[in-house]
Amino acid sequence: MEAPQSIENLQVELAKLPGIGPKSAERITYWMLDEDNVEPLELAGAIIAIKRNVHFCKRCFNYAESELCPICEQVERGARDASIVCVVAEPKDIEAIEKTAEFRGAYHVLGGVLDPINGIDPTSLKIEELLARVRAGGIREVLVATSPTTEGEATASYLAHKLKPLGVAVTRLAIGLPLGGNIEYADAVTLSRAIELRREL
Amino acid sequence: MEAPQSIENLQVELAKLPGIGPKSAERITYWMLDEDNVEPLELAGAIIAIKRNVHFCKRCFNYAESELCPICEQVERGARDASIVCVVAEPKDIEAIEKTAEFRGAYHVLGGVLDPINGIDPTSLKIEELLARVRAGGIREVLVATSPTTEGEATASYLAHKLKPLGVAVTRLAIGLPLGGNIEYADAVTLSRAIELRREL
Repeated sequence: MEAPQSIENLQVELAKLPGIGPKSAERITYWMLDEDNVEPLELAGAIIAIKRNVHFCKRCFNYAESELCPICEQVERGARDASIVCVVAEPKDIEAIEKTAEFRGAYHVLGGVLDPINGIDPTSLKIEELLARVRAGGIREVLVATSPTTEGEATASYLAHKLKPLGVAVTRLAIGLPLGGNIEYADAVTLSRAIELRREL
Repeated sequence: MEAPQSIENLQVELAKLPGIGPKSAERITYWMLDEDNVEPLELAGAIIAIKRNVHFCKRCFNYAESELCPICEQVERGARDASIVCVVAEPKDIEAIEKTAEFRGAYHVLGGVLDPINGIDPTSLKIEELLARVRAGGIREVLVATSPTTEGEATASYLAHKLKPLGVAVTRLAIGLPLGGNIEYADAVTLSRAIELRREL
């Protein structure tokens, strides 16, 4: 008990953040304590704002502050292609895909991947909502961008099985060696898929 | 602009924390967004609490929530030795020393070290307040625990020069090889001081 209680509380709360250990928590606490530093109050405000204002987009289940998320609003304005929908597990996957600037369609967030062992079955995910969007018409392709893990692959297969009868093209992200990767260090599974899925030059 | 504004704001604020890069800020943001996670609001509350409640101890200038810091309160109750005062540059140095459980006296926080180039002269630090504490009596030893840097050493010399005429013992933390350190990797300055300050076995 050498520090005031509120300082110890803050260190405990900071150490709960992912990737922050007790040493970083201590360093951040002392940075925050600096009298002239008003940044911490802005951070506190930003935290309260996301917990108060952010909910799910009623169409694609991305994070949103209005009824629709910023991407669905762009689709609505005709600034993005409404006829192709990229299906992702979590909203953070959208951020990764948007950074590529390769995809200009709409999204659909499942809220996870199928994982029966942990009780995640199709009804736990936004799959019925995806099927309803496709049934409503105007969508020609669904790009399933779940991760190439066992659960992600199973989810993609399940979606393909459900979507194909609706007359929509179902595609999947390519699998292979990462660009800039070294064959020497590639894992055997990826390398064997890269050979299996080799393309003509 | 793929994410709602308040999510981007939070990432910007988190990336201002020391040791937190944009990637960690993103990871923490998504952790905070989890609907069921109430920890972020507790963190926001803890930040607001330190900015509202924490000020400087009126006696030793450590962080305090009451008039006196927890350590000065212990001194007041007779639970610590009031006759030896450890002088540190910053409140966080107290935490480091308390962890050793080696020191059971009082503290005095200077609020920095002498650094004339950056305009930190004796009047910028709590030196007059330290001299007043010693003049008030009851202190037999002042242990100067500033870091063994140029500025820390200069501050220690200045304090010794001011304190010795007041009839108090002035001591300094030992300099030498760190325990568990390897001579092979010791820096030349530390090693030469360790030779100079060698002790008899």
